[in-house]
Amino acid sequence: MMWKPDRQGKKPLYEQIADHLEQQISYGEFPPGSLLPSERKLAEQLGVNRSTVILAFAELRSMGIVESRTGSGTRVSRTKWEAMPKHTPNWSRYCEGGSFLPNLPFLRKIREALAQQPSLIDMASGELSPDLAPTDEIAALMSEHRYTSYLGYDNPQGYVPLREALVGYLDAYRKIQTTGSSILITSGSQQSLYLITQCLLSPGDAVAIEDPSYCYSLPMFQSAGLRLFRLPVDQDGVRPEDIRILYKKHRIKMVFVNPNFQNPTGTVLSMERRRQLLHIASELGLPIVEDDPFSLTAYGEEAPVPLKSMDTNGSVLYIGSFSKIAASGLRIGWMVAPHSIVERLADARQQMDFGLSVIPQQVAAQFIQSSYFQPHLERLQLQLQFKRDLAIASLRKELPDSISFTAPQGGLHLWCQLRHDVPDGKLLEEAVRKGVVFVPGSVYGSDAGFVRFTYARAKAEDIETGISGFAQALRELLS
Amino acid sequence: MMWKPDRQGKKPLYEQIADHLEQQISYGEFPPGSLLPSERKLAEQLGVNRSTVILAFAELRSMGIVESRTGSGTRVSRTKWEAMPKHTPNWSRYCEGGSFLPNLPFLRKIREALAQQPSLIDMASGELSPDLAPTDEIAALMSEHRYTSYLGYDNPQGYVPLREALVGYLDAYRKIQTTGSSILITSGSQQSLYLITQCLLSPGDAVAIEDPSYCYSLPMFQSAGLRLFRLPVDQDGVRPEDIRILYKKHRIKMVFVNPNFQNPTGTVLSMERRRQLLHIASELGLPIVEDDPFSLTAYGEEAPVPLKSMDTNGSVLYIGSFSKIAASGLRIGWMVAPHSIVERLADARQQMDFGLSVIPQQVAAQFIQSSYFQPHLERLQLQLQFKRDLAIASLRKELPDSISFTAPQGGLHLWCQLRHDVPDGKLLEEAVRKGVVFVPGSVYGSDAGFVRFTYARAKAEDIETGISGFAQALRELLS
Ligand SMILES: Cc1ncc(COP(=O)(O)O)c(C=O)c1O
Ligand SMILES: Cc1ncc(COP(=O)(O)O)c(C=O)c1O
Repeated sequence: MMWKPDRQGKKPLYEQIADHLEQQISYGEFPPGSLLPSERKLAEQLGVNRSTVILAFAELRSMGIVESRTGSGTRVSRTKWEAMPKHTPNWSRYCEGGSFLPNLPFLRKIREALAQQPSLIDMASGELSPDLAPTDEIAALMSEHRYTSYLGYDNPQGYVPLREALVGYLDAYRKIQTTGSSILITSGSQQSLYLITQCLLSPGDAVAIEDPSYCYSLPMFQSAGLRLFRLPVDQDGVRPEDIRILYKKHRIKMVFVNPNFQNPTGTVLSMERRRQLLHIASELGLPIVEDDPFSLTAYGEEAPVPLKSMDTNGSVLYIGSFSKIAASGLRIGWMVAPHSIVERLADARQQMDFGLSVIPQQVAAQFIQSSYFQPHLERLQLQLQFKRDLAIASLRKELPDSISFTAPQGGLHLWCQLRHDVPDGKLLEEAVRKGVVFVPGSVYGSDAGFVRFTYARAKAEDIETGISGFAQALRELLS
Repeated sequence: MMWKPDRQGKKPLYEQIADHLEQQISYGEFPPGSLLPSERKLAEQLGVNRSTVILAFAELRSMGIVESRTGSGTRVSRTKWEAMPKHTPNWSRYCEGGSFLPNLPFLRKIREALAQQPSLIDMASGELSPDLAPTDEIAALMSEHRYTSYLGYDNPQGYVPLREALVGYLDAYRKIQTTGSSILITSGSQQSLYLITQCLLSPGDAVAIEDPSYCYSLPMFQSAGLRLFRLPVDQDGVRPEDIRILYKKHRIKMVFVNPNFQNPTGTVLSMERRRQLLHIASELGLPIVEDDPFSLTAYGEEAPVPLKSMDTNGSVLYIGSFSKIAASGLRIGWMVAPHSIVERLADARQQMDFGLSVIPQQVAAQFIQSSYFQPHLERLQLQLQFKRDLAIASLRKELPDSISFTAPQGGLHLWCQLRHDVPDGKLLEEAVRKGVVFVPGSVYGSDAGFVRFTYARAKAEDIETGISGFAQALRELLS
C-alpha cells in the first residue's frame, strides 16, 4: 500500500509529504546522491497538486536534505547525508506501540493530581490509610526474626513457607481446604487477574464481568483481545441466570465476580444466588474467577463464605490478597486453582518477572501466623466501620437531598448515586480544585451520575473536609 | 471449519467422535430431546465408516447421554441432561489457551529435575550460590533499620529513595548520569525485557538479538509476535555492520544486546565496536536495549564501560539488576530510559502487578548505600574468579581433548564447545543421571555441541564432582 498524505490531518499536506520523504531518505530508500521522483510524478502518485510537492521539496531544500538544479531534478544531498546526521529514536512512536493499552484517562488524571498536590484528600485510591496498615507489626516482625532464607530465584509458585501458612489461613478464615501445590503466590490480586487474562484466554474469547465492577476499569481485558459482556449487579449481586443467557449467545469462556463487598458497589452476593451460580457453572463447565480481597473486612458480622468453599465441582479459581486487609505495599496475593493451572501460570510469570521477592513473602508468612494478625483484623474492621460512618454522616449533612447510597457492611468504598446529572469530568476537576479526589462511576462502567468514595484511605479527621469539598464542587456545578 | 477426527490421534476414531458429540451436547448444540444426525449422514460428514459412528453412538448410549429407538434415530437423553450433569471446566483446554507461550522444554526439564532431586549439582541456574549472596548483610540491615515507610501502593515508577540511591550508584559504578525521573524500578532485568517487548513493540515488528543469547531462550519475544533476527556473536561481541544489513532488509525496530560478559558466551563487546554500534544506532534512529546484569562481576580489571555512558544521542535503553551481583531473590532491577518511556512502562506495569513490594526496595536502597556494598562486590569478584578457575581446572583434567572454551573475565558462566557431536537432550538426561545439570547451548540458539556451565551457583566443593559427572555422561554417550 502506497503512503498517502492525510487530508484530515492537522499538518499541512506539503509538511506531511516533506516529513515522509525525509523519513524515507533516512531509512535509505533514497541513498545520498540519488534522484527523487519528479514533481509531476510524485504529485500524481500522492494525489496532490504539483504546487504541494514543490512546497515539500522547498522545505527539504531549506533543511539541506535535498538539492535541486534546474533541468536535472531533485537529488538527495551528499554532504548532508554522508555526514550522517544523528537521529534520536522516535520514542513517542515507540510509546504508542504494543498491544498493551494505557490506563483509563480518569485514573491517570487522579494519579497525576495526587502526585502534583500531595495535600489532596484521597478518597479515590482503594487502599488503607497508613494508620490502618500494620506497619509497626511488620517492622517488629522484621527485627524479631532474623532474615535467613536463601535469596535465590524463588520457587516459581512462590515461597513454600508462605504457601503452607496460607493453607492454614484459608482453612481458618475462609473455610477453603487446599494444599500448597494448588496455591500460586502473586503480586496482589492484580497479577492473578493479569495472568488469567493473558494465559488462559485467547484473543477473541468472550468473558463476563460485573456491571459496574473493578474489572471494567482494567484495560487489560481489552489488551488481551477479550470480548467483554456485562452482568448487571443489583442489591444482591449478579443474577446467575444472566450467565446462562450470555453463554448461549456468546459462548462466554469465563466469568469474573467479586462477590464479597464488591468494588465499587459494596454488594454481597446472596447465598441463594451463590448456589445458583455454582450450579450453572457446573452445568456449563464454565470457570468462575472469584476475586475476594475484601471479605475479611466484614464489619460486625461474620465474613461471607466464599464461592470456593462451596465449590464441590472445581469450577472456581479463587483469588485473595493482603492489599485490603493488611497493606497493598506488601504486594502479596494468591490464587487457589487446579495444579495444572497453577503450573501454567507460574511458568508464564517466571518469564514476565521471575516471581516475587522472597523478603515480603517471608514477612507475610510470619504475619499471618503471628499473634499480631487476629487483633489487627479486629481493629481494622472497627476502624473501617468508623470511617464509613464518618463518610455517611458527612454526606447526610452536606448533601441531604442530592445523593443516595446503601451503607456497605464491609470493604473500603461507598457507592453513591447523584440525584442530578453532572458531567463526570467536570465534577472531578472541580473537586480537585476543592482539595479532594474521588473516582467517577463511569470508570467502573456505570452510567453517569455515580461516584465512588473510598473512606479507608483518608485520615479519619479529613473525611468530613473531603466530603464537604466534594459537596461544594457539586453545588457549584449545579448552580 | 467442520470438526474432523484426528486419524493420527492416540484415541480410536469412535471415541474421538463420542467425545466430540458429548461436548457439543453439553454446549447446548443439541438440546435435550433433540435428534442427532443419522449414522449415515454423520459418517459422510466426518469421512469415516458408518460402523465407526455406530460405535460412537453405542458409547454415548452406554453413558446415558443419548437414547436410540429403532426407526426413530438417536436422540439426546432428556433424563440425563435435564438432571444437569456436572462438568468441571476443561482446564487442560484453558491451559493451552492464551498467546503466552510456555518456557522452553529443556528449561522446564531442568527445573523439574532440580525440584525432584535436590541433591543435583546445579550448574544450570544463572545465579549466585547462597554463600555468595549478601544474606547476612541484608539480614543485618533489616534489623538495624526499623521499617518505617508507608506500606501503600508504591509510586508507579518505584520507591523514590531507591531511585535516588540508584542515581548515585549509576554515576559511581557505571558512569551513567541520570535522574530519578528517568529510572523505572522493575522485578529484575526480566521485567524490563518483558515490558519493552509488550509495550513498545507491536506484533509483526522485527527486532535483532544476539546469537547465541539469553534473549533467544525467552519465548516472550515470540509471545509478543515479534520477528527475531540474529546478530552472530564472535570473540568481540556482535558486528555492528550486521545491524545495518538487518535494518535495510527487515526494518528492525530495536536491537537487544548484553555487551558485558554476555550470557552465555562471556564475551565483552570491544570498545571499537561499541563506538560503531552507537554510531549506527544514531544514524538509523534505532533504539538499543543494553542488558547489563554482569558488568560489576568483572574479575581483576575494571568493569567494561556501558554503552549508555557513551550514548550522547539518547539511543540506549539501559537495564540493570541486582540479581547477578547481590541476590536474584531480591527481584530488584531498573531501567534508565527517556521519561516518556518510563511513564508508559510504569502505567502498563501497574496494570500487570501494581508494582513491587516496598520492603525489598527499601532493603536494596540501604544496601547500595551501606558500607557493606563495596566489600561485598570485591569478595564476590574474587569468589567468582575462584569458582571459574575450579571449573576450568576440572574440565582440563576430566576432558582434556573433548572440549574447548575461552576463560571469561567476568559473569557467572563458562561457554564450552564439544569436539564431538552429541545430541543435546541425551547428554542432559545422562548428566542428570550422573547428578549434575547444565544448559544445552541450543537453548540460547547455538548449533548442537555447545554447553553452558554456571560455576556461580554450585558450592565450590561440588564443582569438580559436577564436571566429573558431566564428563562421565559425555564419555558414556561417545562409547
Ligand atoms: C476487586 C479488586 N480486585 C483486585 C484489586 C487489585 O488489588 P491488589 O493487586 O492490590 O490485590 C483491587 C484493587 O483495588 C480490587 O478492588
Ligand atoms: C542476560 C540476562 N538478562 C536478564 C536476566 C534476568 O535476570 P533478572 O530478572 O533476575 O535480573 C538474566 C538472567 O539469567 C540474564 O542472564
